[in-house]
This record gives sequence, C-alpha cells and structure tokens, in this order.
Amino acid sequence: MDIAIVSRLGKLEFMAQALSEALPEARFFHWPEPEALSADIALCWAPEPGVLARMPNLRLIHSIGAGVDSILADPHLPPVPICRIRDEGLARAMADYVLWSVLYFHRQFDRVIANAGQHIWHRYEQRAREKMRVGIMGLGSIGSEVASVLSQHGYPVSGWARSRKDMAGVDVYAGDAELPNFLESANVLVCLLPLTAETEGILNHRHLSMLPEDASLILCSRGEHLVVEDLLELVKSGHMRGAILDVFTSEPLPACSPLWSTPGILVTPHMSGLAKPRDIASQIAENIARLERGETPHSVIDPSVGY
Amino acid sequence: MDIAIVSRLGKLEFMAQALSEALPEARFFHWPEPEALSADIALCWAPEPGVLARMPNLRLIHSIGAGVDSILADPHLPPVPICRIRDEGLARAMADYVLWSVLYFHRQFDRVIANAGQHIWHRYEQRAREKMRVGIMGLGSIGSEVASVLSQHGYPVSGWARSRKDMAGVDVYAGDAELPNFLESANVLVCLLPLTAETEGILNHRHLSMLPEDASLILCSRGEHLVVEDLLELVKSGHMRGAILDVFTSEPLPACSPLWSTPGILVTPHMSGLAKPRDIASQIAENIARLERGETPHSVIDPSVGY
Ligand SMILES: NC(=O)c1ccc[n+]([C@@H]2O[C@H](COP(=O)([O-])OP(=O)(O)OC[C@H]3O[C@@H](n4cnc5c(N)ncnc54)[C@H](OP(=O)(O)O)[C@@H]3O)[C@@H](O)[C@H]2O)c1
Ligand SMILES: NC(=O)c1ccc[n+]([C@@H]2O[C@H](COP(=O)([O-])OP(=O)(O)OC[C@H]3O[C@@H](n4cnc5c(N)ncnc54)[C@H](OP(=O)(O)O)[C@@H]3O)[C@@H](O)[C@H]2O)c1
Repeated sequence: MDIAIVSRLGKLEFMAQALSEALPEARFFHWPEPEALSADIALCWAPEPGVLARMPNLRLIHSIGAGVDSILADPHLPPVPICRIRDEGLARAMADYVLWSVLYFHRQFDRVIANAGQHIWHRYEQRAREKMRVGIMGLGSIGSEVASVLSQHGYPVSGWARSRKDMAGVDVYAGDAELPNFLESANVLVCLLPLTAETEGILNHRHLSMLPEDASLILCSRGEHLVVEDLLELVKSGHMRGAILDVFTSEPLPACSPLWSTPGILVTPHMSGLAKPRDIASQIAENIARLERGETPHSVIDPSVGY
Repeated sequence: MDIAIVSRLGKLEFMAQALSEALPEARFFHWPEPEALSADIALCWAPEPGVLARMPNLRLIHSIGAGVDSILADPHLPPVPICRIRDEGLARAMADYVLWSVLYFHRQFDRVIANAGQHIWHRYEQRAREKMRVGIMGLGSIGSEVASVLSQHGYPVSGWARSRKDMAGVDVYAGDAELPNFLESANVLVCLLPLTAETEGILNHRHLSMLPEDASLILCSRGEHLVVEDLLELVKSGHMRGAILDVFTSEPLPACSPLWSTPGILVTPHMSGLAKPRDIASQIAENIARLERGETPHSVIDPSVGY
C-alpha cells in the first residue's frame, strides 16, 4: 500500500508519526517526490491543482481535516471517492470554543477585558440568558454538537441547514427562503458551514444587517464565508457588537490586517477545533482497511454539493 | 411591619423597588433615619457596628446577599436569627463565570488575547481536558453548583469543605488535614469559601505554592481570602500561570493596584454572581412571612462558625 501526502502546506510532519503508527505496513511518499504519483491513496490538504489527476493508481482521496474545500478547488479531480474526517473530539473542542465565545459576549467579558486594560472598574447589567439566542449556521457533525452543548447549557438555540431536521432543543430553519427569519432572531451568530459555491461570502452586509441590534459573530468555519469589510463597517457603526474570528482567507492573518486592531473584534489563531493527529490517523487507517475489504469508506463527501 | 435598611453602602436604591413590591404592607426606613431603630426587621449589607444592638424590637437580621461576613464583623450583634440569600440564579451565574474562566485557561485564551493585542498569531498545543483538574474550595450553595456544572462539562473536579460529603463526579476532601492533597492536584483553583476567621488569608504563599506548576486561580468569594502580594510573587516568578479575580478588599479596585497591570492577571468588577433584586426580595418576603407564622426562616446561618 503506497500512500502519497499531497499538500501545499508541506510534509505535514505533525501527522507523519501518527500515520506510520496507524498504518505500519504502508510506504509514505511526499509529493513532489516522483514515487508519490504512483500511490494508491492520497492524503490531502490544499493539494496543488492537477496533481491528483496524474496518479493512475489512485483509489481514494482522503482529507486530513473536516473540510474538503481545499481539495474540491482542484478542477481536475479524478473520479475516486473523497473522504473527510469526522471527529468527536474535534466537534467537542469546537463546542468549547463556541460556548466560551457566547459567554464572552453574554457576560460582557469583551467590555470587561477592554476596561481592565485601562484600569476601569465598571459593572454591567446582567443580561438574561433567554435574551441571548444563538443561531448556528450549519448543523453537520460540528454544528449539531455545538447546538446540543449550547442548548444543554440553557441558551435558546436556532439552527440553519440545507435540509429540514428535527433536533431536540433547537429551532431548525432550512434553505435560503428561511435564512432571513433565522438571522433576525440570532443575538449571536455562529458559522459552521462548509465552504462551497453557495456559502462563499454568505456573511455579507445584506445578511449581517438582518441580525438584531448588538449581535455578535463567531466564525470558525472558513475565512471565505466572511466579507471582512462588511463586518468592519457594521461593527464600527455600532450595529453589531463584535466578533470572534478563528479563520481567515490568508493564515496566519497578516499583522497589518485591520481585524487585529478594531475594538470589538477578537482574532484567534485557527485554534477552535484541532483534532489529535492520532485520531485523524486512525480514521484514515480504518477507511483504508474498509477499501481493502471492498466496503464503502466512512464519511464520503458529495462533490456535486461540495461537502 | 417596620423594616430598617442598615447599610454603609447607602440606601440600596436598586433593591428598594423590588422590596416594596414584595412587601406591600411594610414600612421602610433607612438608617440613620431615627425610625429605623424601632424596626422589627433589619436588611443589611455592611451595617455600621453597634447599630443593630440599638434596635429593641429587632426579631430578624437578613443579609441581602449570600455572604454574612459584613454583618458578623459587628462585635455587638443582638441575639436574633441571621439569614442569608441562597439563590439558584446567582449560583448559576457564578457557575457560568467559573466555566468561562476555566475554558479561558484551558484553551489558552489568556495568551491568545494577549497575543492579539500585539497582532501575534501563535497556535498553542491543545491541552487535554483530563489534565485540567478544577479544585473548588467551598462546596456550599454556590460551590456545589459550580462543581456540578464543571463536572457535567467533562472536567475532573475536586472539592474541599469543612465536612465530608458525597457528590457525584467530585472528589471531596475535608478539613485542614486534607487541604495539601487537595491543592496538589488542582490545575485551576476556584475559591468559593465564606469569609470567616479560618478562611481569611487562606490563599497565601504557603497554600498557593502547593498547587502544581502552571496552575491558575479563580477568586469569586471575598478579597480577604487572598494575600495579594503572595499571588503577585508566584505569578511573576512563573510558578503560577495567572488568575481571574472578581473580588477585592477594596472595591472598586483602585486604578493604582498592581493587579490591573500584571500580565496573567485579569480583574473583573465583582460581577460573577449578581442576583436579581426581585429574587432577593421574594426570599426576604418569604422569610418574614415564616417569622410571622412562627416558623423558622430559611437559610439561617450559625454565627459561631461564621457562615
Ligand atoms: N476552525 C477550525 O478549526 C475548523 C475545524 C474543523 C472544521 N472546520 C469547518 O467547519 C465546517 C463544518 O464542518 P462539519 O463537519 O460540521 O460539516 P458537515 O458535517 O458537512 O455539515 C455541513 C452543514 O452545513 C449545512 N449546509 C451546507 N451547505 C449549506 C447551504 N448552502 N445552506 C444551508 N446549509 C448548508 C449542511 O446542511 P444539511 O445538513 O442539510 O446537509 C450541514 O448541516 C467544515 O467544512 C470546515 O470548513 C473548521
Ligand atoms: N463574587 C460574587 O459576586 C459573590 C456572590 C455571592 C456570594 N459570594 C461569596 O461566595 C461565598 C460562598 O457562598 P455559598 O452560598 O456557597 O456559601 P455556603 O453555602 O455557606 O457554603 C460555604 C462552604 O464553604 C465551606 N467552608 C466554610 N468554612 C470552611 C473551612 N474553614 N474549611 C473548609 N471549608 C469551609 C463549607 O463547608 P461545609 O459544607 O462543611 O459547611 C461550605 O461547603 C459567600 O460567602 C460569599 O462570600 C460572592
């Protein structure tokens, strides 16, 4: 079994050890090593477009993360199954991040921390939890876990997905037609959508200005979901209270980005949902074993919808 | 029914409306109005020492908060029952504050926020939840709620009280003899003790240095529990990671306090557990009704132990 690691981010050293432990019999090649092109399996993060089409023996493309947008960006993909990671630990870590962020706005730690920097003691009125409705865009493996943790914690929760679904404690909205109603009631908006042609730039002036006054944004999906200038305008004008942003179109976020220095906006370094390399490697190994046994691998995505 | 409001903090205006709604037949007097001295009931926060002893008709002293330390500080208290507030909403708000604070250290938001201020993008290794044991000092009405919320959220939790008790999901330590063992395992120490002769200054160099390396402190009980210079020394020397402090011996915390400006320490404005005036007023009204019916009021404290 030959496995190629195909990523513009380099050798993914942090994964290599875990992968060779999980797949002791496999041989690993790192593209652009020429042997990579004859591998059976490609493990990818942002592969260079066209490379996968040059692999004649390829039987499976596996993302090493939850998203596949950086793979589907290649217009010349060969017709083999594409799998993603679906990790409970990752979803749980993301739910922690979002819960922390919701409490940050709810209990006004945003203002309290800013005041502390200036040695200002000011106690704000305590907002009722019922007045902090959390609206979650995307109810997939991560969004549904986030929704359930927040709802268990007592927050009113709405969710928005493509298809209608039934979730205990969550008011579910479906499809583009219901997006305005969903947005109008969200005091904190959390984006956990995959990046697709439909969702790119969805957090724009038109949609963000449908949020009620003083709403906040928590972004942990992809930087491309957000139109940065629109957020900056709405925060500066005071219509929106603020945002916690974990993902950016260019990472690390350049030091000159106005996002770092705009009051009300907190930048975090793509940290919301790290999965353990060992957990990722064991899912990949399990999917390869399934392929060998002639079974369908887990978590195959649908390239026609983009996730 | 004549009720005296006896507080060095003044008229407690924020309570007055709620109290007169809850007790429509009562007459209210604010000490130092002379009529206050003939009241049946005293509602107190930091009463001036000696005043309560000058009230011949007094039948009940009621704190308007969860703590009674500011009442027991009066050496001339008359021998009538002293009651405190025991409010679910307050305990829940406090649990939110502590959960936010534990996540702040666990997910390294302390460092991430400091970095953001300097436009620095740096991702830290994700610490395992199992390595963040939360040690809660005081397992009373607030500490037990905090323990249960944190344990439900998946954190390993220890608790320390005077008496031994059985709490699901919490390793309970009791009494002074077990304090060192309790401290040695606490990666985050949360103080929710009442202020008494035994607990004053308990967060001193000797005890704080028993914590494991890189531990943090969350203080939401009383400023007098902490020896500020000892904390500053342990944080500056790097033995302790940091602290979130909500209470201080002098409030508002003076702008010149070194606590505001020491890296690793976050000052919040006594905001962790505000109760709604209406909930406080209804508990006081219920206790007065019980007194009228000849029943024992709820939440009577024991002045001999101090809480
Ligand atoms: N910041 C980080 O550290 C980090 C870590 C991991 C993942 N992520 C991001 O999080 C994203 C979500 O992950 P996931 O595992 O939860 O994805 P998922 O399981 O594929 O779920 C996607 C959800 O989005 C909904 N959706 C997709 N397109 C939509 C549209 N056009 N309109 C409305 N709803 C739409 C889907 O609706 P249906 O249910 O109707 O299909 C589904 O509920 C990933 O794609 C990745 O970009 C970020
Ligand atoms: N920052 C804020 O906004 C805020 C708001 C409300 C309250 N508070 C503070 O929080 C404190 C705790 O409130 P609470 O309602 O939970 O108090 P509580 O119900 O009286 O409980 C006190 C707990 O502390 C333990 N304890 C007392 N003395 C001890 C000692 N010497 N050694 C070990 N354990 C001891 C008790 O042990 P046993 O169970 O064995 O008796 C009990 O578990 C209040 O006194 C107040 O100062 C702060």
